[in-house]
Amino acid sequence: MVRTELSDLGEFGLIEHLTKDVKLINTSSLKGIGDDAAVIDHGSLKTVVSTDLMVEGIHFDLVYTPLKHLGYKAVIVNLSDIYAMNAKPTQITVSIAVSNRFSVEAVNELYSGIHLACQIYGVDLIGGDTTSSIKGLTISITAIGMAAENKLVYRDTANIGDLLCVSGFLGGAYVGLQLLEREKQIYLEDKNMQPDLENKDYIVGRLLKPEARKDVYEFFQKCDLKPTAMIDVSDGLSSDLLHICRQSKVGAFVEEGALPIAQETSLKAMDFKLPPSTCALHGGEDYELLFTVKPKDADKLKYALDIRIIGEITKPEDGIYLHTTGGKRRELIAQGWQHH
Amino acid sequence: MVRTELSDLGEFGLIEHLTKDVKLINTSSLKGIGDDAAVIDHGSLKTVVSTDLMVEGIHFDLVYTPLKHLGYKAVIVNLSDIYAMNAKPTQITVSIAVSNRFSVEAVNELYSGIHLACQIYGVDLIGGDTTSSIKGLTISITAIGMAAENKLVYRDTANIGDLLCVSGFLGGAYVGLQLLEREKQIYLEDKNMQPDLENKDYIVGRLLKPEARKDVYEFFQKCDLKPTAMIDVSDGLSSDLLHICRQSKVGAFVEEGALPIAQETSLKAMDFKLPPSTCALHGGEDYELLFTVKPKDADKLKYALDIRIIGEITKPEDGIYLHTTGGKRRELIAQGWQHH
Repeated sequence: MVRTELSDLGEFGLIEHLTKDVKLINTSSLKGIGDDAAVIDHGSLKTVVSTDLMVEGIHFDLVYTPLKHLGYKAVIVNLSDIYAMNAKPTQITVSIAVSNRFSVEAVNELYSGIHLACQIYGVDLIGGDTTSSIKGLTISITAIGMAAENKLVYRDTANIGDLLCVSGFLGGAYVGLQLLEREKQIYLEDKNMQPDLENKDYIVGRLLKPEARKDVYEFFQKCDLKPTAMIDVSDGLSSDLLHICRQSKVGAFVEEGALPIAQETSLKAMDFKLPPSTCALHGGEDYELLFTVKPKDADKLKYALDIRIIGEITKPEDGIYLHTTGGKRRELIAQGWQHH
Repeated sequence: MVRTELSDLGEFGLIEHLTKDVKLINTSSLKGIGDDAAVIDHGSLKTVVSTDLMVEGIHFDLVYTPLKHLGYKAVIVNLSDIYAMNAKPTQITVSIAVSNRFSVEAVNELYSGIHLACQIYGVDLIGGDTTSSIKGLTISITAIGMAAENKLVYRDTANIGDLLCVSGFLGGAYVGLQLLEREKQIYLEDKNMQPDLENKDYIVGRLLKPEARKDVYEFFQKCDLKPTAMIDVSDGLSSDLLHICRQSKVGAFVEEGALPIAQETSLKAMDFKLPPSTCALHGGEDYELLFTVKPKDADKLKYALDIRIIGEITKPEDGIYLHTTGGKRRELIAQGWQHH
C-alpha cells in the first residue's frame, strides 16, 4: 500500500491533485475551481444554498466508515437539503481539514466518493478549501441549487387538512448504527482492515451510503405535484415533523401503522429489543423526504410506489400526536439524532 | 462571568440563539435561516461563491485571538475573495464545530464578530450548521456575491504589458503574527485573560482584525475601471502573483522599491531582523487586492490614494522577478503562508 504524506504535495498540489479531473457539466457553472470564487449563472431562476459540517468522532467513525462512502454521504446530506426545497442541486463546494494521520491515498478515497456522488447526481464541484487540522477529519460542504420561484417549497407553509407523506423507509440508518457500534470491536482488533460493505446488510448501507431522493423530486416535477411544505428526514421523523408544525403553526398526527419500515429494519430492531416504530420515529439520517400535500393532490400519489401517506396536518391546538396501532394517542416529542 | 454549557441549549436552541437577531437586508435574500436551504434571487446577475475553512491551532491561536475578532476575520477572509472577483458580496453561510471547552458566551462572542462584519459589509447571514467537535473550534464560511457577467475579473486574464497594482500596505499581518507569537508567553501566564487589543499596535490589528477592500471594489465601479486580472493577497504577494502568472501564462516583475510597507511594519520587522520587503513579499493574510490594469487605465489610478503600481506583466519566458532596490534581479518563488 503506497502512502504519500500530505506534506509531499503541499496545499496547492493537493487541491490540484484532487480536482484535476473535475469537468463542469452544468451550463450554469460559468467558473469552477481555480479562482477566488466560483461563478454560477442561474439566469432568472432562484439560487438555493445549503451547508453542512461533518466532524470525525461526532458524525462519523472511521473504524467502520470507508472513506469513499464518507465522501459520498457528505455530498448526499447536502443534496438532500436542496431536494427538500423542491429544487435541483447544481453545484457544491467542498472544504476539508485533515490531520497528518491521513495519507494522500486516504484523501483520494474520500474524494472518489465525492466525485461519484457528483457524477450520479449531475452536480458540479466548483470550489473549496483544503487545510490541515491538529486532529481528525472535518468536511464542510455547501450545495447550491436552482428552482423557479413558484416551485420552491418551504417548511412553514403546511395547511390544516393537508396529508402528511414520506418517501422510502424509515429507521434503517439508526438500526444500522446500532449494528455497527456493536461490531466495532471486531474492526478494532485489526486496525488496518477497512470494513467491506459489499455483502453487508441493507441497514448498514442505509447508514453508510444513503441516497438523496432525486427520483422523488423528479416525480413531483413530472406529475406537476407541488407539496405544500417539505423537509428532509435528517434528525428523525418526529424532530423534523416538529419543525414543519412549529414553523407552519399547525398540529399533526402520525399513524403508527402507516410508518414505512423495511423488514430488515424491523427484524434487526427487534434483535436489539428496540420497537421498530421508535426507530422510525426518532432515528435520524434516513434522508427521506417528509412533506405535506393538499388532499385533492392525493390522487397524484397513487402511482408513486415509494411514497406513503402517514398522517395529517391538524389545528395547532390539537398538538402533535402519534396514533398507536394499539389505539392510543401519544404526544410526539423530538428526541433527535444522538450527535446533536 | 456567566458560563452556560452548550449542551444546555441543544443544537436547535443554539442556532436560534445565535441567529434570532439576524435581519435580511438584501432584496436578493428571499429566504434566510430556518429552512433546508436559503434562497437567493440574483435575477439576471451572476452568482459568485467562495468558501474558507479555519481550524483552531492551524489558522488561529485563541491565546491571543479574541473570539469576536476571530468571527469578524472569518467573514472578512471570504468577502475578500468575492471582492477579488470584482463582485459584491451579498450573503454568507456560517458553520461551526465547537468542543465543550467553549461556553455559550464564548460562541456568542464569536458570532458578535460575525454579525458585526455582516453589518459593516452589508451582507446577509442566510444559513449554516452548528455542531460539536471532539477538540477545538472549526469555522467554515461560504460567501456568495453577485456581479454582471462583463464585470467579473478572473485570475487568468492578465496581459503582457499590463501594470501590476496592489491596494493598501503589505507585510503587516505577518509581522503582527511574529509579535504575538513572541508575546504569547505573557498571555499564557494568565489563561483567563483575553488579550486586549484596543491600544495595541497597528500591525496586531492587521493580523487580528483585517478588512476586506470594499472601498477598492467601489472605486473600480465608480471610475469604471475593470482590472484585467485580480486576486486577493491571502497567501502572500509572491504566491498570489504566481497564481496570476501561471494561470494567465505570463511573466511579471515587481519593483522592490515600490512595495507599499507601513512604517510600523518596517520598524517592527527590523526589530525581528526581518527585511521588510521579505515580509511584504512572502507574508500572508494582508487581504489586499493584487490586480493588473491596461496601461491606458493608469490614468484612472491617479486619484486612488491607496493603490500603488508595483510592477508589470511580461512575456512568459521572462519569468517572475523582483527588481531589488540594489539593482539586482531575483527570481520570485512562492513561500506562502506558513500554515499551508
